[in-house]
Amino acid sequence: MTLNLPSTQLAVQWYPPSYDVRAEQVPVPTIEHPDDAIIKIKLAGLCGSDLHVYRGHEDVEETHICGHEFVGEVVTLGASFQSASPASRPTAYSTLKVGDKVVSPFTTSCGECQFCRLGFTARCVHSELLGTSTLPGAQAQFIRIPHAGGTLLPISPGSPLEALPDQALLLLADILPTGHFVALQALTHPKLSPIFNGKPWPHGAGAVFGPVLEIQDAPAPLTDEDRILCIAVVGLGPVGLCATLALLDLLVSAGIRFRVIAVDPNDARRKKMQEVYDSLPPDARGAQDSQFVVADIEESKAVVNGWGRKGCHAVLEVVGNPAALTLSLDLLAPSGVISSCGVHQAPPLPFTGRTMYNYNVSLEFGRCSVRAVLGAAAGLLLRRRDAFEGLVERVLPLSHAPEAYARFEKGEWGKVAFDPWA
Amino acid sequence: MTLNLPSTQLAVQWYPPSYDVRAEQVPVPTIEHPDDAIIKIKLAGLCGSDLHVYRGHEDVEETHICGHEFVGEVVTLGASFQSASPASRPTAYSTLKVGDKVVSPFTTSCGECQFCRLGFTARCVHSELLGTSTLPGAQAQFIRIPHAGGTLLPISPGSPLEALPDQALLLLADILPTGHFVALQALTHPKLSPIFNGKPWPHGAGAVFGPVLEIQDAPAPLTDEDRILCIAVVGLGPVGLCATLALLDLLVSAGIRFRVIAVDPNDARRKKMQEVYDSLPPDARGAQDSQFVVADIEESKAVVNGWGRKGCHAVLEVVGNPAALTLSLDLLAPSGVISSCGVHQAPPLPFTGRTMYNYNVSLEFGRCSVRAVLGAAAGLLLRRRDAFEGLVERVLPLSHAPEAYARFEKGEWGKVAFDPWA
Repeated sequence: MTLNLPSTQLAVQWYPPSYDVRAEQVPVPTIEHPDDAIIKIKLAGLCGSDLHVYRGHEDVEETHICGHEFVGEVVTLGASFQSASPASRPTAYSTLKVGDKVVSPFTTSCGECQFCRLGFTARCVHSELLGTSTLPGAQAQFIRIPHAGGTLLPISPGSPLEALPDQALLLLADILPTGHFVALQALTHPKLSPIFNGKPWPHGAGAVFGPVLEIQDAPAPLTDEDRILCIAVVGLGPVGLCATLALLDLLVSAGIRFRVIAVDPNDARRKKMQEVYDSLPPDARGAQDSQFVVADIEESKAVVNGWGRKGCHAVLEVVGNPAALTLSLDLLAPSGVISSCGVHQAPPLPFTGRTMYNYNVSLEFGRCSVRAVLGAAAGLLLRRRDAFEGLVERVLPLSHAPEAYARFEKGEWGKVAFDPWA
Repeated sequence: MTLNLPSTQLAVQWYPPSYDVRAEQVPVPTIEHPDDAIIKIKLAGLCGSDLHVYRGHEDVEETHICGHEFVGEVVTLGASFQSASPASRPTAYSTLKVGDKVVSPFTTSCGECQFCRLGFTARCVHSELLGTSTLPGAQAQFIRIPHAGGTLLPISPGSPLEALPDQALLLLADILPTGHFVALQALTHPKLSPIFNGKPWPHGAGAVFGPVLEIQDAPAPLTDEDRILCIAVVGLGPVGLCATLALLDLLVSAGIRFRVIAVDPNDARRKKMQEVYDSLPPDARGAQDSQFVVADIEESKAVVNGWGRKGCHAVLEVVGNPAALTLSLDLLAPSGVISSCGVHQAPPLPFTGRTMYNYNVSLEFGRCSVRAVLGAAAGLLLRRRDAFEGLVERVLPLSHAPEAYARFEKGEWGKVAFDPWA
């Protein structure tokens, strides 16, 4: 169950304390546990969250191989992978073969612990983040994936995903599922349920508690205006762009009228967002009276103010710093939801308890459980394939990593991918 | 539409800067707007959140009448109340009569703005908190209620609530709905949906988005153990006790197996919680393998640790200070929900962005929309009437307010009510 691999490979390594990445020769990984797989990388991504380590913000001290996004091909499988693998284990242990094409979530997940069964694969008890000192990353020619039967998504022959180019599949490793997650986390929040089902909170929110929620007096019925969802996306980097496309797709699918505002201080990002929106087929832009606005920070406050309801029902925070959280709160109406997928660092949350109480704020934080939303994200990718085209702006050899990191960090370049064999 | 009222009344007034309340003569309120009602108070409550002003923590400087819980009787109605009142207005404008018995949420709500229609009556655009410098409170003989047609709940002749004593009805003003709210806010969170519907997140969470959430691979099915809800209640004052009873009622109604731990450092509060639980009928204590534990802070960590899943699915925070939030996080598993109804003050939240991200924490804050959950809370009160009996420990004349505030603040006394006519 293995191909002959070289003993060394080219990889991008990060060096402490900050702003120092180098493409250099390192050992090729080997199987360390029967559940491991070794993957030959075909394409690896450079992601906004790689920048936290790059900038020295993650309290990391060890040199390690960077990167957590890849598309690749199985070259070695551990002993757990065999057709006689127990039926109780994730399917891939009995089906995955050397030569199969795979994509991987940016964190490993066993598929066998309670957190995985509940759908919280990002918090799998065995979860490891690719591209750290404990699990060398994907900006390399080969990578070892632990718990590979639970982690990897095979692109099976006959799957509609087989027709997608690697640059599109690469988006499934992190940014597209993360964008889908941050949108879904807001839209499934019970405070938004009145917009979807027309029943005032909490009467439409708690289906399983229906019999308990007898009401003694009918509130005034919701108006048409009440059922227009007002929502902001803060941050239009690659994940923010994915989040906006996922949000629009979910709303259009559910037939919800909306006012969506996509906010970023960076001119180039706003321009790209508008272009991508304009490229959507008309039926993917929402009902005729829905609105989509791209704005900078100051404009965003004026636009939301003009909507006349003290702010948005929900804000998607796709940046990961205190300023973005503060802007999110500025754009939020009382009883609203901030859904955050930003990789926040050491600073405390910029909110007082009194503000949280006085505005009835809901805050949703954390890492996307990619494995759990991979199917939904893949569906979105297939439906909106054209919109995601061009999201990867440059494909470069690993040797260009120092320049790519520096320019991506300064916002001069958009999303970069590396071809480790170029 | 009025009775002859005296020109002065006895009321409890708060004086700055702190720890100073006085029972004294003040003017009787009069109608100021056609939507107002004047209510003769039959019973007024002393609530834990009165203590924030009492202690001088609310940045209030003006002397004012305290109190936001009451049961009373309509003595004067503004001109909006008439049988010919427009059908578009809340029902009470055309049905409420002088002499009717009423309870009131602790905040007013018009019933006519978008926030009210959505069910977020605590964030009504006209909402005012009773017992502040702008709206004199209920620890008095009379009170003026603005937007009374949207705010007040009439105890109509023939309503099952008519049979309840005033001490029970008083709980509907704040603490019982607030307890119900903090429990419901956790239980309706989509992260808990796998426990209720057996489908991993997000597949059971987003009903309206169903068609989008196609999955490509079936995760391992949830086990029986996975579907036992683990939940902590932090703080067993009167609201915490109500929250625990509401939680148990909701779980039993929905047939959910549970492990509930109710936590407080105060011996007397723990003893009372245990007594109230023991007094419940067997079918209200949950399925045979459900657990209910009362614990102090240190014990709580050990008990939750013994449950073997890194913490609870959700924690109800019913205190309102940073220490309670910190304990809530200590007791929470990754991908969990903290539902808070504590009246938090000026300190920042004691959480870093990194912790929120790394543990995928959901935080739900804010004031209960009493008017929206009043029906559900009333149903709970009727079902569990015996359990709530004795929650008001003392009924005293208003002249005893200084001692009552002092002892309640020190935790020496449990819930106190005032009879303004004693």
